[in-house]
Amino acid sequence: MQAEFINPMLASVVNVLKTMAGIEPQPGKPFLKRRPDLSQGDVTGVVGLTGPVQGSLAVSFSESAIVYIVTQMLGEVCTEINGDVQDAVGELSNMISGDARRALADKGYTFQGALPTVISGRRHEITHALSGPAIVMPFRLGEHGTFFVEVCFEQSVATGRT
Amino acid sequence: MQAEFINPMLASVVNVLKTMAGIEPQPGKPFLKRRPDLSQGDVTGVVGLTGPVQGSLAVSFSESAIVYIVTQMLGEVCTEINGDVQDAVGELSNMISGDARRALADKGYTFQGALPTVISGRRHEITHALSGPAIVMPFRLGEHGTFFVEVCFEQSVATGRT
Repeated sequence: MQAEFINPMLASVVNVLKTMAGIEPQPGKPFLKRRPDLSQGDVTGVVGLTGPVQGSLAVSFSESAIVYIVTQMLGEVCTEINGDVQDAVGELSNMISGDARRALADKGYTFQGALPTVISGRRHEITHALSGPAIVMPFRLGEHGTFFVEVCFEQSVATGRT
Repeated sequence: MQAEFINPMLASVVNVLKTMAGIEPQPGKPFLKRRPDLSQGDVTGVVGLTGPVQGSLAVSFSESAIVYIVTQMLGEVCTEINGDVQDAVGELSNMISGDARRALADKGYTFQGALPTVISGRRHEITHALSGPAIVMPFRLGEHGTFFVEVCFEQSVATGRT
């Protein structure tokens, strides 16, 4: 997982939230994930990546963050994680994956994205088996809480440029 | 999602559990998922699939089922969902994906599998945004509980044969 991947991914998250919900999240400092409980979310979209190497992307929201985002997206007050929220998480994860893959393709790495799977459940943990280290990108939405984007690739991505 | 995909997938799950843990799970009747709360698990491995169409595979275990499986796999008593269990779920999901993808390739559908992502949290729900209907394959491990394999593809898989 190269540092050169991080900035395009951060930019994709900001782009998608701005376009879809008119929200500008404040990115925190990305870090290497060492303990799974560092980024417990209440609803998470997972998108698998295939290409020169295998990867995966997880976008994990606190309940307060996602109800705020979905309220802004739909223009209707949303108060809890329901079917609309699960759909929105799938859609946002897919769009972040698509935007990030375009940015990676510009750097010579061409990836395909799988269908998003959405997991809901209070404070679940995310771990990445069989992968290199995961990078966690934390985002803040002012008083509306936090969300995290996690990305990981097999160790051999350094040799995977096309 | 074709019926012709179901039997090879069921066979892959049984193969992998038998090979890795010496366990023969009893498959139940597969069904179309209509409500997400039908298959709440305590730990789930998600593997994205790309190829002629996008897809995803989720393997979701109750705590009692996975601690039994991991105890059999490792030959050491395992009593709760910990790092070893999360690693095992990632590995089992990856192997089921690999075995199922070989079976699908024999039918003319060539898929790549992404890195598995593992989610842990009591009774989480799994939903599949942007997809065709998900098929749920339930399995029983006698008194040791249940697990579910869910698979879904985009609607257009019928035209995706290579």
